[in-house]
Amino acid sequence: RLECMVRRKLGEDWIFLVLLGLLMALVSWCMDYVSAKSLQAYKWTYAQMQPNLPLQYLVWVTFPLVLILFSALFCHLISPQAVGSGIPEMKTILRGVVLKEYLTLKAFVAKVVALTAGLGSGIPVGKEGPFVHIASICAAILSKFMAMFCGVYEQPYYYTDMLTVGCAVGVGCCFGTPLGGVLFSIEVTSTYFAVRNYWRGFFAATFSAFVFRVLAVWNKDAVTITALFRTNFRMDFPFDLQELPAFAVIGICCGFLGAVFVYLHRQVMLGVRKHKALSQFLAKHRLLYPGIVTFVIASFTFPPGMGQFMAGELMPREAISTLFDNNTWVKHEGDPQILGQSAVWIHPRVNVVIIILLFFIMKFWMSIVATTMPIPCGGFMPVFVLGAAFGRLVGEIMAMLFPEGILFDDIIYKILPGGYAVIGAAALTGAVSHTVSTAVICFELTGQIAHILPMMVAVILANMVAQSLQPSLYDSIIQVKKLPYLPDLGWKQLSKFTIFVEDIMVRDVKFVSASCTYGELQNLLQATTVKTLPLVDSKDSRILLGSVERSELQSLLQRHLCPERRLRAARDLALKLSELPYDGKARLAGDGLLGGAPRGRPESFAFVDEDEDEDLSSKTELPPPPPPLPPFPSVTPSFEEPNGPLPGHKQSPEAPEPAGQRSSIFQCLLHCLLGRARPAKKKTTQDSTDLVDNMLPEEIEAWEQEQLSQPVCFDCCCIDPSPFQLVEQTTLHKTHTLFSLLGLHLAYVTNMGKLRGVLALEECSLSCLFPIPLFLFLSCLFFLSPPPYLFSSAFCTSFLLSPLPSYRKLS
Amino acid sequence: RLECMVRRKLGEDWIFLVLLGLLMALVSWCMDYVSAKSLQAYKWTYAQMQPNLPLQYLVWVTFPLVLILFSALFCHLISPQAVGSGIPEMKTILRGVVLKEYLTLKAFVAKVVALTAGLGSGIPVGKEGPFVHIASICAAILSKFMAMFCGVYEQPYYYTDMLTVGCAVGVGCCFGTPLGGVLFSIEVTSTYFAVRNYWRGFFAATFSAFVFRVLAVWNKDAVTITALFRTNFRMDFPFDLQELPAFAVIGICCGFLGAVFVYLHRQVMLGVRKHKALSQFLAKHRLLYPGIVTFVIASFTFPPGMGQFMAGELMPREAISTLFDNNTWVKHEGDPQILGQSAVWIHPRVNVVIIILLFFIMKFWMSIVATTMPIPCGGFMPVFVLGAAFGRLVGEIMAMLFPEGILFDDIIYKILPGGYAVIGAAALTGAVSHTVSTAVICFELTGQIAHILPMMVAVILANMVAQSLQPSLYDSIIQVKKLPYLPDLGWKQLSKFTIFVEDIMVRDVKFVSASCTYGELQNLLQATTVKTLPLVDSKDSRILLGSVERSELQSLLQRHLCPERRLRAARDLALKLSELPYDGKARLAGDGLLGGAPRGRPESFAFVDEDEDEDLSSKTELPPPPPPLPPFPSVTPSFEEPNGPLPGHKQSPEAPEPAGQRSSIFQCLLHCLLGRARPAKKKTTQDSTDLVDNMLPEEIEAWEQEQLSQPVCFDCCCIDPSPFQLVEQTTLHKTHTLFSLLGLHLAYVTNMGKLRGVLALEECSLSCLFPIPLFLFLSCLFFLSPPPYLFSSAFCTSFLLSPLPSYRKLS
Repeated sequence: RLECMVRRKLGEDWIFLVLLGLLMALVSWCMDYVSAKSLQAYKWTYAQMQPNLPLQYLVWVTFPLVLILFSALFCHLISPQAVGSGIPEMKTILRGVVLKEYLTLKAFVAKVVALTAGLGSGIPVGKEGPFVHIASICAAILSKFMAMFCGVYEQPYYYTDMLTVGCAVGVGCCFGTPLGGVLFSIEVTSTYFAVRNYWRGFFAATFSAFVFRVLAVWNKDAVTITALFRTNFRMDFPFDLQELPAFAVIGICCGFLGAVFVYLHRQVMLGVRKHKALSQFLAKHRLLYPGIVTFVIASFTFPPGMGQFMAGELMPREAISTLFDNNTWVKHEGDPQILGQSAVWIHPRVNVVIIILLFFIMKFWMSIVATTMPIPCGGFMPVFVLGAAFGRLVGEIMAMLFPEGILFDDIIYKILPGGYAVIGAAALTGAVSHTVSTAVICFELTGQIAHILPMMVAVILANMVAQSLQPSLYDSIIQVKKLPYLPDLGWKQLSKFTIFVEDIMVRDVKFVSASCTYGELQNLLQATTVKTLPLVDSKDSRILLGSVERSELQSLLQRHLCPERRLRAARDLALKLSELPYDGKARLAGDGLLGGAPRGRPESFAFVDEDEDEDLSSKTELPPPPPPLPPFPSVTPSFEEPNGPLPGHKQSPEAPEPAGQRSSIFQCLLHCLLGRARPAKKKTTQDSTDLVDNMLPEEIEAWEQEQLSQPVCFDCCCIDPSPFQLVEQTTLHKTHTLFSLLGLHLAYVTNMGKLRGVLALEECSLSCLFPIPLFLFLSCLFFLSPPPYLFSSAFCTSFLLSPLPSYRKLS
Repeated sequence: RLECMVRRKLGEDWIFLVLLGLLMALVSWCMDYVSAKSLQAYKWTYAQMQPNLPLQYLVWVTFPLVLILFSALFCHLISPQAVGSGIPEMKTILRGVVLKEYLTLKAFVAKVVALTAGLGSGIPVGKEGPFVHIASICAAILSKFMAMFCGVYEQPYYYTDMLTVGCAVGVGCCFGTPLGGVLFSIEVTSTYFAVRNYWRGFFAATFSAFVFRVLAVWNKDAVTITALFRTNFRMDFPFDLQELPAFAVIGICCGFLGAVFVYLHRQVMLGVRKHKALSQFLAKHRLLYPGIVTFVIASFTFPPGMGQFMAGELMPREAISTLFDNNTWVKHEGDPQILGQSAVWIHPRVNVVIIILLFFIMKFWMSIVATTMPIPCGGFMPVFVLGAAFGRLVGEIMAMLFPEGILFDDIIYKILPGGYAVIGAAALTGAVSHTVSTAVICFELTGQIAHILPMMVAVILANMVAQSLQPSLYDSIIQVKKLPYLPDLGWKQLSKFTIFVEDIMVRDVKFVSASCTYGELQNLLQATTVKTLPLVDSKDSRILLGSVERSELQSLLQRHLCPERRLRAARDLALKLSELPYDGKARLAGDGLLGGAPRGRPESFAFVDEDEDEDLSSKTELPPPPPPLPPFPSVTPSFEEPNGPLPGHKQSPEAPEPAGQRSSIFQCLLHCLLGRARPAKKKTTQDSTDLVDNMLPEEIEAWEQEQLSQPVCFDCCCIDPSPFQLVEQTTLHKTHTLFSLLGLHLAYVTNMGKLRGVLALEECSLSCLFPIPLFLFLSCLFFLSPPPYLFSSAFCTSFLLSPLPSYRKLS
C-alpha cells in the first residue's frame, strides 16, 4: 500500500516538470559551458600565433572547420534526424503526425554533442531551435520513464501535453527566458493551445531558467541572478515620443528584411535540393558542403583580413553584448580600448556606420548559408544578431543626425543606439519567425522593459510586413522538407466563409457496402488507392456506418483467398468425402470451422488501441472493455468443389504491411482458421505447412471465383465506428478550424446519415481545378501538405484528437 | 467598383483592431481622468474642512456614499447587467453561452458611468474586470458596425474572435499593460486558445496601451511613455540568492491568503443570497447594502480616527505607488515628510510594521465586502493592493532582521522592501485569479523586470497552493451566480482516462423515429422534457439521422392539429361535396393543398442560419445554397370525415416560443397552408379568420385522433443533419476536451451509425449515482453547470463551434 502511494506521489505532474526543468537546465548550462570553453580555446590559440599571419589564418579557419565537420559527421553517423532546427518538426509532431525515430535517445545524444560542437565553432548557428528538439526528446523519454509510476503518461493526450511543455522548456532554458520561452513556443508550435499547458509550461520553464541562472552564479559567471545580456540603459527617459518614427522605420524595414531572409533561405535549400546532380554529389560527399561553407565564412571573418571591417573577431554572443552597449559609437573619440569588447567596432580609418553596415550584409548571407548546413542549427540567434546590428545601425545614424539629442519640453533626450539595437533584434526575429513574443524574450534577455511600447510597435509592424510577404522560417522549412502540415488560413478572408464543404468535397466517393461481395471488394481495391474507405449499409441508402482502413480490407480479402484456407477446405472436404458415400457433387453447407469457432471466444483478443502512438510501448493498463456484440449477422461461408490437390502457390498481389498491426491481424486470421483461443504461432505455421498444395490452377481459379461471389464478412475487421462527419453547409473556415483543432486528416460529408462526399487534406489541393478564383490561393496553402499516403511508409499518422479514440476489433 | 474596394479596405481586420484600441484607450483615459479629478475634489473638500472634525467626517463619509449610491442606482435603472466584474460572464460567453442583454450599448453606458463613479469614490473596487466587459461590449458593437463594410463580421466564429480580442484590449489598456493584458485575458477566459487571436490581441492591446500612455504624456501626467507605477529599484543587484526563501514564503503565504480571500468572498455572496428574508429585503431596498458598506468602510478609514493607523488617507492607486517605494521605512528616521506621500505610513508612536499589518487586515475584509456591492467592480486592483501590502510587510520585517543587508561573496546586498511589495502583489493576484501572467502585468506596471525569477517562483508557488484549495475568484463567482460553464478537469487524474463514455452515458434515450406517427410524437413530447431529441431511421435499427429541437417537434405537432388546418380541410371537403353527388361517406385521398404545394418552391425560403447569434441582426449576405432534395418521401396526408362546422377553439397546450425562430416557422407553416411563395402575413391572417370554427367537440376529437394516427411529415422541420457523435470507448478526458473545445452541450453516442446513448453536460452530474468513487469528484465539478434547460428561458445557447454549422430548413 505504502509502495503504491509512493509510486503515485512520484508519478505526479510537478515531479515530472521539475525533473524536466532540472535536466534541461543542466544540459543547457553544460552546453554553454563547453562551447564557451571551446571558443576561449579558439581565441587563445589564435592569439598564440600572433606574429605569424599565415599560421593565424590556418588556426582561424581550421578550428571551426574541424568542429563543424565533426558535428556533421557525428549527426550523420548517430542520427540523421538531429540535423536542422527542430521547430518545424515539432510543429508537425504536435499537429498529430508521428515522425519516426525523431524523439529517440540517439537523436538526443547526436543533437547535444553536434550542437555543442557547432556552437563552439563560432559559426553563426543558433541554439534555440535545436534546443526545442532536445527538450522535447527529453520530455518524451522522461514521460516513458514516469510511466513506470503512473499510467497516465502513456495516454497519447498526455504525451502531447508533455511535448508542448518540452518545447516551452526548450526555449525557456536556452537563454534563461521562461516567460518569452513559453510564449514563443506557443506561437511557433501551436494552432490551438490548451491553457492548462500554459501553467505547466511556466512552471517547468521557470524552474529550468532558475536553475540555469543559479548554475551561472555558482560558476562565478554572474554575481547574482540577472539577465543573460543585461543592458544598463537609463531608466528615467529611455526614449522620446519623437523617436517613435525611427522605431517604426526599424519595424517596417525588419519586416522586409525578415521576408528576404526567409525567401533566400528557402532558395538556398531548394537550390541544393533541386539540382539533381549537385544534390547527388553532395549526398555522396556529405562533408563537402559544410566544409566549403565553413571555410568561406571563416576566411571572410579572418580579423586581419576582411574581418577588421566587419568586427569579424566577435563570436555571436559577444556581438550581441557589444551591440547592446550603452555608449554611442559615432560620438566616441579617443582610445577605443575603454569601450572594452566594443573596441573592435571602431576602425581607425573607417566610419563605424560603414562597419556595422558591412557586418550586417556579410552576416546576412553567412547566416542564411550557415543554417542550411547539415548540422543541428537554429536560425533564431543569427537573426537576433542581424536584427541587433540593423537596429544599432539606425541608432547610430540617428545619433549622427541628432548629435545633441532631441529637445522636447525643455528636456534634452539623448539618443541611445543600444535601445535601437534591442528593438531591431526583437523586430527582425519577430519578422522571421512570425511571432510577437520575441519582444518578451528581449526584455528577459536584457533585463530592461523600459522600451516596451516602441518595441511592441516595431515587432507588430515587422510582423505585419513579413506575414504579408512570406511564410515564417519554420513554415518555409516545412514546405521545403514537405512535412505534412495544415497551414493557417490568412487572417480575414471572406472567401473562407462563403465556400462550403459541398463546393470542395469529392462527391464521387468510393465506398464499401456492408452487403457487398468479395469480388466487389476486390474491384474496389483495384480501382482506388485511398487509405481509408467509408462503410455504408447498402448501395442505395448509403447510410454511413463507419470507416475501414484499406489495409484491413486487403487483409480481409487476402485471408479469404489465401491458399491455407483453400487447402484446409479441400482437406476437410476430402475427409468428409472419405466418410460419406460419393455422390458426384457433394454440397456441404458451411458449418465448418471458419464461421463458428472464432465467434465463440471474442474476449480472448487483446484490446488493440490503434490510436496509441507506436513509440509508446503499448502496455496499456486499461481494463479490456466488455466484448461488443457483433453488429452484423455472421456470414457463414460455404465451401464448394474442392478437388484433387496440385501445386501452384498463388502469391497475393498485396505487399505485407508493417509489423505491429499485421501481427495482430495474423493472429486473428490464424484464430479464424484454427478456432483456437490463443494460437501458438510456431505450431500453426507448422500446421499449415502440413497441407500440400496440389490443386490445379484452373481449380484454384474456379475456387477463387466462387469465393469472390460470397458476401463479405466484416466480423474480423477493424472498423472505426464513428468517423468524423461534416455537413454540406459547413463553411471552409469551420472545416479548417475543425481539421486543425482535432488533427483530422479525413472527414466524411453526410446528410441525415447519408454519405454525400468525402473531404481529406489532399482534397483541398485537388480542388485547385475548381473554378473558384479565391480558392486558388487557399489551395496553394493546402498544397503545402502533400497527400497522407505519400507518408504512409515514412510516417505513421496518428489521430491524437480525433473523436474516434479507440478502434476496436469487432471480434 | 471603387466604392466596393473602399468598403472592403475599410472592413479590414486591422482597421477594426485600431478602432477598438483607440476607442478603449480614450474610454480608459477619460475614466481615469474623471475619477482622478473626483478623488482630487474629494481630498480638496476634505482638506478645506480642516479644523472642523465633525464636518471633515461628514465630507469623508458623504462623498463616497453619494458616488456609490449613484453608481448603484444608475446600474439598477439603466442596465442591471452592468453589475459586478464581467470576467466570469465573459468566460461563459466565450464558452458559447449567450447571455441576453449582456453586450448592449445600454450596459456599456451603465458600466462606464457607474464604474467611473465607483473609482472616484476611493472605495477599494477594481477597474480591470469591468473593463474587460466594457471592451467586449465595444468589440461587439464595433463588429456590428464593421459588418456594414464586410460580411465576415457577422460570422459567429469571427464574432467570438473579436470578443476574445476585446477581453485582451480591456485588460491591456486598463493599466497600459499590453503583454500582460493579452496573457491574463487568455488565462482567465479561455480553455483552448486560437493562436491567431494572440496576434490580434497583441496588436489591439499594444495600440490601445500606446494611445493610453500618449494621452497621459499630452496631459502632462507623465514626461514620456513610462509605466503606470514606475519603480526605481537598483538594477545592478536587485536581490540576492539568499533572499529567495523569503520570496518563496511570500508566494506560499499569498497562496493561502488568496484561497481565504476567494472563500470569504463566496461566503459573503452566498450569505446574502441564501438568507431568503435578507435577500428579499435587500432586493426591495437596493441602495441599503452598498450604502451600509460604504458608510462602514469610509468610517473606518477616516484619517483622524482609525485611519491614521492604517494609512486610511491613501486612495488605492496612491497606496500602490507608496508601497512600491524605493525607501526602507523601518530604517527611516527624522522627518517623514521627505518621503513624500509615503509619509502617511510613518506614525510617530506606532511601528510601521504594525501599520502595514493593520492596513492589510482592514483592507482585506473591506475589499471582500466592497466587491460584493451591486455596482461595477473588479477584484483585481484591491487584491493587488493587498498583495503589495503583504509583500511590503515581509520586506520591512526582513529589513528589520537584516538592517545591514545580506553579505554574500564580499558584497553587501541591502534589502529592498519595495521589491518584496511587487512580488507580493503579483503572487496574491496570481493566487486569487489562478494565473501566472500577473507577473507580466507587474513588470509592465513597474517598468522593471529585474525581479523576474523570484517573482515567477513566488507566483507559481502561490498558484500551486491556491489551486489546490479553492477555485479562482472568477470560477467562484460563476458557481455562485450559477452560470452555465464546464469547469476544467484537475491536472492529471488517471480516472479521466479509465472512465469511458459508456460508463456515464444515458442508455435510455428518447428518440424520434422517422416513421413514427403524430400520436407517438405527442406521447414522446409529453414523456420527456429534453430540449433536443435524436432522429433515427426506425425503432429497430436506430440509425441516427440527425437531431431535432423540441420546439420544432412541438410546432410540427401543433401545426398538424391546428384549427385552421382542420377548418380548411372541412371547407375543402364541403366544397368538394357541393360539387360531387353525395354518397354517404366520401373518402378523398389527399391531393389537397397541404401535401403538394409547399414542396413546389422550396427555394423561396430564406436561408435561416440558426447557428447565428440572435443579437447579431441576421441580415446574412451569404448566397442561399441550392435547395436540398428532401431526404424523406413526402407523406401526403389524407383527410377524412370532416363534418359540419361548430365553435370550440382548442388551445394548444404548448406555450409559444420566442420570436426570432418562431416567425420563420410561422412563415413556413403559412406557406404550407397556403402554397404561396411569399406569404403576405396580413392577408393570410385575414384569410384564416374567414373560416368559422363551427365543428362539434366530439368531431374535433375524432378529427384529431385521426390526424394523430398519421405518420409524421418531417419536411417542414429544421433538422440538424449531423449532430456530434461519440463512440462508447471515448474516454472521459477526451469527451471533456471535445466538449470544451467545440463548445458542445450534447453529444450522441453511436456505434456503427446506431444510436446507443446520449451524453449532455447534465448527464455527468446525474452520473453521481454511479458506483465509481473517483468519479464523484468529477461529477461535483460538472455539477457546477446546471442542466441547460434551466437556462432555456434566460439564455439562448449557441453552438458556436459545433460541427453542425448551419441548420437548414428541409422544406
